Amino acid sequence: RQSLDNKVYRVARKIKKVGQDDPRRIVHGLKVGLAITLASLLLFYIEPFNKLFHQGQNGIWAIMTIVLIFEFSVGATLGKGLNRMAATSLAAALGVGIHNIAFRSTRNNNAGQAVVIGFFVFTTGAICTFMRFIPALKPYDYGLMIFILTFSMVSVSSYGPEDFETVVRDRILSIIIGSVIAIVVCICICPVWNGEDLQNLIAKNIEKLGNFLEGFKGEYFHKGEYFPNSEDGQSLDNKPFLKGYKSVLTSKSSEETMANLARWEWQYRFGFKHPWKQYVKVGALTRECAYKIEALNSYFNFEFQAPYEFRSKIQGQCTQICSETGKALKELASAVKTMTKPTSVNIHIEKSKVASLKLKLLLDMILLEDYNLREITPPAAVALILIDVVPCIEKIANAVHE
Amino acid sequence: RQSLDNKVYRVARKIKKVGQDDPRRIVHGLKVGLAITLASLLLFYIEPFNKLFHQGQNGIWAIMTIVLIFEFSVGATLGKGLNRMAATSLAAALGVGIHNIAFRSTRNNNAGQAVVIGFFVFTTGAICTFMRFIPALKPYDYGLMIFILTFSMVSVSSYGPEDFETVVRDRILSIIIGSVIAIVVCICICPVWNGEDLQNLIAKNIEKLGNFLEGFKGEYFHKGEYFPNSEDGQSLDNKPFLKGYKSVLTSKSSEETMANLARWEWQYRFGFKHPWKQYVKVGALTRECAYKIEALNSYFNFEFQAPYEFRSKIQGQCTQICSETGKALKELASAVKTMTKPTSVNIHIEKSKVASLKLKLLLDMILLEDYNLREITPPAAVALILIDVVPCIEKIANAVHE
Repeated sequence: RQSLDNKVYRVARKIKKVGQDDPRRIVHGLKVGLAITLASLLLFYIEPFNKLFHQGQNGIWAIMTIVLIFEFSVGATLGKGLNRMAATSLAAALGVGIHNIAFRSTRNNNAGQAVVIGFFVFTTGAICTFMRFIPALKPYDYGLMIFILTFSMVSVSSYGPEDFETVVRDRILSIIIGSVIAIVVCICICPVWNGEDLQNLIAKNIEKLGNFLEGFKGEYFHKGEYFPNSEDGQSLDNKPFLKGYKSVLTSKSSEETMANLARWEWQYRFGFKHPWKQYVKVGALTRECAYKIEALNSYFNFEFQAPYEFRSKIQGQCTQICSETGKALKELASAVKTMTKPTSVNIHIEKSKVASLKLKLLLDMILLEDYNLREITPPAAVALILIDVVPCIEKIANAVHE
Repeated sequence: RQSLDNKVYRVARKIKKVGQDDPRRIVHGLKVGLAITLASLLLFYIEPFNKLFHQGQNGIWAIMTIVLIFEFSVGATLGKGLNRMAATSLAAALGVGIHNIAFRSTRNNNAGQAVVIGFFVFTTGAICTFMRFIPALKPYDYGLMIFILTFSMVSVSSYGPEDFETVVRDRILSIIIGSVIAIVVCICICPVWNGEDLQNLIAKNIEKLGNFLEGFKGEYFHKGEYFPNSEDGQSLDNKPFLKGYKSVLTSKSSEETMANLARWEWQYRFGFKHPWKQYVKVGALTRECAYKIEALNSYFNFEFQAPYEFRSKIQGQCTQICSETGKALKELASAVKTMTKPTSVNIHIEKSKVASLKLKLLLDMILLEDYNLREITPPAAVALILIDVVPCIEKIANAVHE
């Protein structure tokens, strides 16, 4: 019994965490509930609408539409809603057309009608399904699916009741009402803008790199002995800033999804000349930089130690580069977040460039007689990577400036 | 006119390419068309079924179900189909129950019924929508959506016609028939198994790393002068094996999606004790290794040259490591692909271990008096990374053996 209690408690805590991680999720749930309830009240209990839809239960299509298109972010909801409305109308018109052709050409010949309608349903289904694989049509993927759906439903049900054109019209109306309710609720109550989320994600990723570089300085070039335990005796695993950048390495697909969805949010489109491609570019450059940082990180794991005397020679310039690039990245992050022009980024980058030049000269001058190559290569490689990180960050800065 | 022709031609070529890249896409289109046509013929023109569904047009729910659940791979289709059937039945039963409560407790009181039903619809919608964010429920995401959909539709339409329980029963039957047709067509005609695709992806990724290492050997340690042009005068950009590994860096999300979908494919489940987690693990290790290779690759870009005399000292062991690890990876790739035990992988790994030991000794012995640190660091770092790659590949091999 105790263990069951324990289990229930743990599950409850997990669920609570889902809400705490992003309270907008709870709001989203309430919004969906509200939209469905609104639609059902409107369509079933309020005067002009319930007459329109009561017959043949066409009103349930509004509820179905809301559940299917109501997504977490405004971009996704708008994309699906617009796709749904356009595809439904188009497909229904076409379906009615096909019905007329089939009906006229094969009057009173049931088998003939079945063949004609079957042929059109098959070809439309096959062609549209194939079209969903074309990359250029990705934003209209949902529309294509709805097109197949509506077209086959309309053509097939045309074989049904007499007043099927009224039924189709009512259903389209119902779907449009559902879409509009979903979109209005989604935008008006605590909207979640994909554009904003993307911006925050990119900013956070840049910041994580900055955190790493600033943390790296303290961890790698501290005074005492080498690893695996760091200066203050803590294991490295306990330093979150050294792990944070890992998520940047694999964030490509979520960035691209967000950028695609953000295109539907015209609020941003008109305001800032849709810089989505720019965001994706900054994200890609950030990832390039993260790979270099992964290389830096791998030098934490080398089990052999460089003599302190050697490390101390290059330490000054290396820490300089780390802290200047770290500062530059952090400022870039806040610039992306607040959409302002960064002010002192260039100063930091210039300083880190100077430091990297000095470091190069230093490396040229060090006399190697007394050293073991295997011992000194890791810190020397770290120095070279740091030199290499500087132009990388300059690229990010240039992309952000644009 | 010429430019229009040109445009049409280019679009046509792009569409053709989508089909050529993966001919299964064309087959998939045909399969969807077939399933819809089958369902419409069955439900509208063939005897026992059309009686069941003709009334109230419940048959269109079968077509809707097919379009919504028919996915490219068996895993995705099965997952959606099972989710849909289970969620629909459950939600419909619950909806009918709620209808009875509302009807009995508020007999002849329309406003009261509206409040009771509205309350249940709102809470169910809100709670289920929130539950979709819980990671553990991800495989049932589609089911939760359908649950909301069916539950609200049933509760709301219960206010409609008298025979609404028959309507609900017919619809559930219709949805089950649609699901079964979709699943049967998906599995019986040229099925696309997610498990197979995942296996191939992992194998291909391992192979790409092997290609890189074998190619790297020839490019980095050739006899003549250094870069940017390689031995045979071609630019490095034209060497596909040096770029191939890039896609491994960002393949995490597609691997995870596939592994999740593959869980629905019991063909694999019973056959091989569902090693999906193992695949994801091998994939993650492969990516770890790819990051190291990204670090290796960055040394192509160093503009300063190591003296040939220095490089030639470490060249022998480095090329040995490259070719042995490359061979090991290629064999691992084919082992993953064909599900056989690799035979000579361990020999290659042992050989590369020996080479890496020798290389370590060599690095310890090299006298550094005449060298410039900045010049010799890149090849020395390459050597260290290669030494570091060996245990990485051993890990992959161990994971594959499991």
